[in-house]
Amino acid sequence: MIKIIVIGTGNVGMHLCKAFEKVGPTSSLKLVAYYNRAQKKLPNINATLAQNLNNLPNADLILLAVPDDAVLSVAQELVGQEAIIAHTSGSVGMQTLSMHKKYGVFYLPQSFSISRIPNWSDITICLESSDMFVNKVLENVAVTLSRKREQINSQQRKRLHLAAVYMNNFVNHCYFKAGKIMEDASMDRSLLDALMQETLEKALDITPENAQTGPAVRNDRKTIDKHLKMLHKEDQEMYRSITKSIQKTHGKKL
Amino acid sequence: MIKIIVIGTGNVGMHLCKAFEKVGPTSSLKLVAYYNRAQKKLPNINATLAQNLNNLPNADLILLAVPDDAVLSVAQELVGQEAIIAHTSGSVGMQTLSMHKKYGVFYLPQSFSISRIPNWSDITICLESSDMFVNKVLENVAVTLSRKREQINSQQRKRLHLAAVYMNNFVNHCYFKAGKIMEDASMDRSLLDALMQETLEKALDITPENAQTGPAVRNDRKTIDKHLKMLHKEDQEMYRSITKSIQKTHGKKL
Repeated sequence: MIKIIVIGTGNVGMHLCKAFEKVGPTSSLKLVAYYNRAQKKLPNINATLAQNLNNLPNADLILLAVPDDAVLSVAQELVGQEAIIAHTSGSVGMQTLSMHKKYGVFYLPQSFSISRIPNWSDITICLESSDMFVNKVLENVAVTLSRKREQINSQQRKRLHLAAVYMNNFVNHCYFKAGKIMEDASMDRSLLDALMQETLEKALDITPENAQTGPAVRNDRKTIDKHLKMLHKEDQEMYRSITKSIQKTHGKKL
Repeated sequence: MIKIIVIGTGNVGMHLCKAFEKVGPTSSLKLVAYYNRAQKKLPNINATLAQNLNNLPNADLILLAVPDDAVLSVAQELVGQEAIIAHTSGSVGMQTLSMHKKYGVFYLPQSFSISRIPNWSDITICLESSDMFVNKVLENVAVTLSRKREQINSQQRKRLHLAAVYMNNFVNHCYFKAGKIMEDASMDRSLLDALMQETLEKALDITPENAQTGPAVRNDRKTIDKHLKMLHKEDQEMYRSITKSIQKTHGKKL
């Protein structure tokens, strides 16, 4: 039985608590407690809300689901713990936890929200471990949540986190800009839903390199100029820089 | 019975021909011929390959599925035709066809590929018509392909085309950049597939405005600087401009 404590109950921590309680009865793990500074009880979670970090119940694994810049200080507060300490951060190196004997990383490359249920089985859980024992424990925990796990070292994880910014933050902002242009011209955003879906499916099907179309890749200067004229000045910079990057990628030059 | 001719058999024209032949037997329309300059026969299409534009069979509607900058010249070659002339271009105004008596636009805001079957029923077909009669014919044709139709005027259609560049070309390029970063760090691209899907679903569910997360929107200068250091110089400009645009959108300043 792997006894788990989750520190931090933001989007990641809260969904981890829920997932552990859900799989608990049929697996070899158990959420024994969770902690947050605000001392806020999570609805529908049976595990104990721990009152402070110096008096945690006995556990095998303490998962830190705290903001990146709080990982170090929380890890320091836990000095003396025998449990494995693992953080869940994309951009913090594993060695930040090296004041502990057994430590690791349990990173979930997904965008979590309170209101949405994660598709756990599709998330590749990215693990890093200070030794083989830690690796075995993290694998045993991960396998109860997802069928996909990968060993990703700290250097790779930092790159992965950067890639996720393109995949999520930047893609989402392009969605926003598209929707804004539609609304400003009195059209319903949903008119482009089919294109949004097809863009994703086509990229998965034939790769984004082969899926690229449009004025940038075909070097259609006339259309690019028309588009720039339609845009607010503050939007031209982003349009230009993405267009330039597409052209560079595909060996074209504006 | 609406007799249709399709001019141009690139991705859009080819898929229109296929779709019309498929719905033909159970609807009030019939593809009577298609034309392309290369005189290339389409596989599995029963309609005639017309040999030249001056000798087309009798038709009610001639759809131009030709490149944007060929719309005017092809329309001029068709002067004398009694049929409705409609183009399928996002960025060409309807009045480009005004040398004809009856004309319109049949625009499909989707990215077509030879290898992929379009999800017709989800595509909102955008119509514009020179008069009510044309509108009725175009509606009758559109309804056989999709349950979604909209009246979109030429000004709106140009904006829609610009929005589609963000939704498709720019999003796809962000997919590419994410995948490239993964590969350069010896990680499998598919590790981010779950995030890719969730990004789309979350934007549809709670709007892109509410779905935005990451270093730009939370004004995390430290992470932004780390990311910029990891990027090739030529990639920094795009990262910076999108980051700046996200911050402007959400009232933050770098």
